[in-house]
This record gives sequence, C-alpha cells and structure tokens, in this order.
Amino acid sequence: MYYKYELKTNNEAFYNITDMVDDAIKKSGVESGICLVFCPHTTAAITINENADEYVAKDVILASKTAFPKLEGFRHDEGNSDGHVKCSMFGASETLIIDKGKLVLGVWQDIYFAEFDPPRNRSFFVKIIEG
Amino acid sequence: MYYKYELKTNNEAFYNITDMVDDAIKKSGVESGICLVFCPHTTAAITINENADEYVAKDVILASKTAFPKLEGFRHDEGNSDGHVKCSMFGASETLIIDKGKLVLGVWQDIYFAEFDPPRNRSFFVKIIEG
Amino acid sequence: MYYKYELKTNNEAFYNITDMVDDAIKKSGVESGICLVFCPHTTAAITINENADEYVAKDVILASKTAFPKLEGFRHDEGNSDGHVKCSMFGASETLIIDKGKLVLGVWQDIYFAEFDPPRNRSFFVKIIEG
Repeated sequence: MYYKYELKTNNEAFYNITDMVDDAIKKSGVESGICLVFCPHTTAAITINENADEYVAKDVILASKTAFPKLEGFRHDEGNSDGHVKCSMFGASETLIIDKGKLVLGVWQDIYFAEFDPPRNRSFFVKIIEG
Repeated sequence: MYYKYELKTNNEAFYNITDMVDDAIKKSGVESGICLVFCPHTTAAITINENADEYVAKDVILASKTAFPKLEGFRHDEGNSDGHVKCSMFGASETLIIDKGKLVLGVWQDIYFAEFDPPRNRSFFVKIIEG
Repeated sequence: MYYKYELKTNNEAFYNITDMVDDAIKKSGVESGICLVFCPHTTAAITINENADEYVAKDVILASKTAFPKLEGFRHDEGNSDGHVKCSMFGASETLIIDKGKLVLGVWQDIYFAEFDPPRNRSFFVKIIEG
C-alpha cells in the first residue's frame, strides 16, 4: 500500500509538502524505516531544501531557469523541454529516514514538490518501508 | 539478492530499461515494496522521464550538454569530465514503488539508462525490497 | 535505528565517506538489503562518482560552479543561494545495495559528501533496511 496526495500548482515554484508526508507516516503507524516520496509527472520533481527563507526556493528556481533555458535546438513539440530537463536534474523522488514515528530532517530542511510547467492538478505518492 | 542487466550503448543518449526492471520485479515475485535501479558506472546514470515523444530525451541530452560543456579548466586526463558531472547531476539511481506486482509509474514515465560516454558495454542492478 | 557520522569540511569539495558507510553496514550486521546515505544540510549533498583520479571531483565542482554561479537576481540574504541550488541538483541522498554484508559499488565508484559552503562541522546519516 502507498499513499496518494494531490495539489494544485499555480506556477513554476516549490510547494512545501512536508505536512502531507508527515500525514502518511502517521497513518502508516510505522515507527522506524524509510519513506519514498515519488512524483509521477515528467515536468515536476521532488526536492529537499531550506524552509526558513522563502527566497531560497525562488533563487533555486531562478538558477535552474538560467542553467536550463529554452533552447533553439529543442524539437519536442509541446515546447516544455526545459521543464523535462529540470525534472531529471531535480529528480523524481526523495527517500528519507523515519525514526520514532517521525521524519528525520535537518533543522533547515523541508520537502518540496517542484513545478516546472504552467498551473496543473498534480499528485505524488508516499511509500513507507518498515525496518 | 539483486538482478543484473546488461546493455550496449551506441552514443550519448537515453536507453529505455523499463522492461528489464519489470522483468526483475516479475522474477522476484514481490507484490508490494520498492525497487532500486542502480548504475555502477561514473559517466552514466539512471533517470525517469517522458516515454511518448522521442525528442524529449534528445532535448534533455542537448540541455545537459549545454549546461555542462567540456571546460578548459578540466584536469582529469581522460577528457570526459563533462560525463562525470552529468553522472552526478542525473544521479546513480532511481527508487520506485511496486504495487500489485507492478511498477507504479505515471502515464508518461519510463526509466532510462543515460549514457554520457562513447559506446560501451554497460550494466545496471535492480534490488527489490518487500514491504 | 540509524547511524550518524560527523566530518569537518575545509572548503567547497567532495569528501570521501565510503569507509564510514562501510562501518555502518558492518555495525548493523545486515548481509542483504539497501542503505540510505542522507545529508541533513541544505548547502551540501551526497553523490557518487569516480574515486581513482582526484581531478574528477575537482572538475565536477568546477562544472557545477560554472553552471550554477552566484546570480545578480538572488534575494536570499545569506548570499549562498548558489550552494542551495547545488544541494538540490546533486541531491540530499544516495541509496545503495548491500549484498553479502558489503556495499555493491562499481569499480570506479565511491560515495562523497559534497560541501557547497565555507568550512563547516557537518554530519550525515546512514539507514539500513534488511531485505
């Protein structure tokens, strides 16, 4: 069994999903193990980064747009190949430790759903392995 | 136990390995759990991206070549440091959910072995954890 | 239970942590399973790359500095947003296979803690799942 969560994105940005991952762990009742947060989309990703200053996420988005711009040589006809490359760079998932029934995160870390396409209805999955 | 698969690459490109990962899951008989697809090479990677339009993979390769070109300052004497940086950026592995004996993938997702060096005999591993 | 290791970094570089991960596996007594190496910091990362030529790590650092420079548009007031973007690009963790009580790594692979900020006292976690 795994847990599915839905979110509505507004634009290219990071959306904090830590509370939803916490919810899955609570529902599972697992005290010790690992937790896989998986994105089933190809122009979005899961990433972990700073939660304190909202400008960190905005700066990371700016840096990724600068490093991976729309290129004249792109041939994918939907015109969103820059979103596809960011999907592979940020990665489809994050795996985290569960201890004493809670996520093990650094002081400044939270988990983000990263949107690289225009507003969409999106989902992600949480799978928990006891151990 | 884990499963080993081999492939022969022709050039810098994505090679769809989803059928081989499906094969490992079938052989394992595991109905529910997670699946780690791991690349043991340092100028190649495992990534997940779109399977519908072949130009997506080509555009992602083009974008990564553009962002991570051969630099004059490189000192590694094999001359393939651009392949090594892409290895770290795309990442050595992907972890996926297994449910009802099958991979849980989004509609547009497939799993790719990404080659960043000239043609090679390559391998990758699939490890399955029940849970 | 999971294992915590500490290291002191000197500058932006890769620090080989494979021996520490081996130590965790030995302490766990697990013969078969997976191993999650997790970084709890947001301007550092865990990555796998070549261990033979020290210039590979230096070239990868150079390439990532070139692709993700400090940008004029950054607004995070600590001035280290370039480190935060590299954190998300390299990724917070690596997951590896354990077989016969040992890490399954390619001939040229080792595991690195990647520092993207000035010298710090850092830590990382190793979580082992039997299976």
